[in-house]
Amino acid sequence: MAETLFVHPGKLHYFAREIFKRLRVPPKDASKISDVLVAADLAGVESQGVARLPFYAERLSSRLVNPTPSIEVVEETASTATVDGDNGPGPVVGTKAMELAIRKAGRNGIGAVAVRKSNQLGMLGYYARMALNEQMIGVAMTNDLPSVVPPSGTRPVYGTNPIAIAIPAKEGRSPFVLDGSTSATSRGKIETAKQKGEAIPKGWALDSSNRPTTDPEAALAALRLLPLGSAPETGAFKGYGLGLAVEILSGVLSGGSFGDELAGAQGDHPGVAHIGHFFAALRIDAFGPFGRFLDRFDVMLKKLSFSHSGGPRVRYPGEPEFETEEERRANGIPLPASVTRDLEGLARSLDLRDAWEHVLASRK
Amino acid sequence: MAETLFVHPGKLHYFAREIFKRLRVPPKDASKISDVLVAADLAGVESQGVARLPFYAERLSSRLVNPTPSIEVVEETASTATVDGDNGPGPVVGTKAMELAIRKAGRNGIGAVAVRKSNQLGMLGYYARMALNEQMIGVAMTNDLPSVVPPSGTRPVYGTNPIAIAIPAKEGRSPFVLDGSTSATSRGKIETAKQKGEAIPKGWALDSSNRPTTDPEAALAALRLLPLGSAPETGAFKGYGLGLAVEILSGVLSGGSFGDELAGAQGDHPGVAHIGHFFAALRIDAFGPFGRFLDRFDVMLKKLSFSHSGGPRVRYPGEPEFETEEERRANGIPLPASVTRDLEGLARSLDLRDAWEHVLASRK
Repeated sequence: MAETLFVHPGKLHYFAREIFKRLRVPPKDASKISDVLVAADLAGVESQGVARLPFYAERLSSRLVNPTPSIEVVEETASTATVDGDNGPGPVVGTKAMELAIRKAGRNGIGAVAVRKSNQLGMLGYYARMALNEQMIGVAMTNDLPSVVPPSGTRPVYGTNPIAIAIPAKEGRSPFVLDGSTSATSRGKIETAKQKGEAIPKGWALDSSNRPTTDPEAALAALRLLPLGSAPETGAFKGYGLGLAVEILSGVLSGGSFGDELAGAQGDHPGVAHIGHFFAALRIDAFGPFGRFLDRFDVMLKKLSFSHSGGPRVRYPGEPEFETEEERRANGIPLPASVTRDLEGLARSLDLRDAWEHVLASRK
Repeated sequence: MAETLFVHPGKLHYFAREIFKRLRVPPKDASKISDVLVAADLAGVESQGVARLPFYAERLSSRLVNPTPSIEVVEETASTATVDGDNGPGPVVGTKAMELAIRKAGRNGIGAVAVRKSNQLGMLGYYARMALNEQMIGVAMTNDLPSVVPPSGTRPVYGTNPIAIAIPAKEGRSPFVLDGSTSATSRGKIETAKQKGEAIPKGWALDSSNRPTTDPEAALAALRLLPLGSAPETGAFKGYGLGLAVEILSGVLSGGSFGDELAGAQGDHPGVAHIGHFFAALRIDAFGPFGRFLDRFDVMLKKLSFSHSGGPRVRYPGEPEFETEEERRANGIPLPASVTRDLEGLARSLDLRDAWEHVLASRK
């Protein structure tokens, strides 16, 4: 009964797009959001994939997210811009801002765009990866609802504030794609541990008495995650600093919101999210010949792959996701029974059973 | 006998400058290197301060570092540049490159400069802080001799690769200055533990059999530091990714060197260092009014300072160093007896005893 369904990425994209269109998102924007969601499923980042469709749908239908935003460039120089997202869907605002950063980098070597009044972006690496086809390095950051406590602090003052960096590699080799929070872990990983009935590692979170905990329920109840580095003596001050830097670029430089001004970033905090982002693109041939860069980067990546003598090969950031994507393009995206059930329910509630049948027909 | 000497920063600067001039560094450049060293001592980062003078002197006199480099801009666009440091002293190359990034940010909102063929920069935060007076955000990164092992790797493939980010705050309040390695710790901290006869925290380093160690001697013998995050389950893959990103920007994008191509970055590896850097500056008023930024940032910093209920106040990156600097400008820079002895020896060997007497006369 609890069977995993393997579905065709294109069909899943079609389904997501129909959902967003039904929620009054213009077709082109509906496509963009679906691109981001399906890219996450392809990369194996299921927590940011189509499993999030009910969340997106609820926020769009309750108008906590604006389906038809007027996204505006409010400040601009040759190489920079500030964008007001008009509370539009994160992927619509985010792709537009990253395209602008790329365009500016095309002309002047580098482009940077700060964004305010936006929403959750989904898989952050998607935006950094947009730079790859342009022979550029892509950078993306975003703030999020407070869930992380400073070293020796007692309450959350900023979010998991992830950073993504994508760097092109030679054809056939995985690009470098770093995509990770500046906290030791994310809420999603604690939820997974809870579902599995497993303890969490020490160094992830505090309980409501500010003691380190290995109990996922206590960690979720308190939601006091630790910065990357976990303890002061193992560098938590650095993870804290990186998280704050993301908060400042996304929430202050953009003229947007930060800290406890953010809301609605999680399902249980209804309200307009007020999330901010920061994007940058660097044109590689502005710094030297692109071919030389690829050759030299290839030397580095080969060396990295042989840093382990025996045992499993050491993989670099982006490599595991690259391999997952190749495999899933061939064999389909696995949807667990719980997700299938949610999506079917969503389709029924929006009178889109045909679109769902279309996905089922693609079953591998 | 083992008395700590408190000396005037200006006198210490004069002494360092005389040393560099004697080593054939042009006066203006000698001043710049001395600026960086004394700034480190003022900030309380003694490991990057005048205690390093003998190291700098040895590398300059053995011509492993070029005292009179022809620093060249080899690639340039409106907002970017690549600089060849001609193996000059890190602080000379670094300040020149950061000045260029600032100039470009002044015109186009953002400037980014990659640097190859340089040397150790000293306190990295110095370069990021150069942006503050221009109402800009400063970013600095550098690669370094391999000393860090990837998660589940067995040998060092990249350096402690620090990142510095400086962000201006309202007058009278400390600016935000993050300045930290992307590894859990640095070699210097392990050396300090060894001197004090203390164990090191688990999560800093492996021994030569690739087992986590708490013995500073074993850690120093193997020199296999762990990435920020320490263990795979507490986010080491993210620290690894950040360190690699710094390595790519500093060593590959610049057309420079990386990984085991680097040498001479530590005293026991004689050879030309081949270190690379990456600098960026962002003009804040390109993204919105500078006054609004300062006001909003002040709101954030105030909130951060009150995130702790009882107990010591939570400080943000840059605050401890800012306080140390205020205190040392008033009371002088403390030089431990071992450093005094080294500097006196250096002065004698370079026939600069007068300059040293000048420092002693400033004793507080």
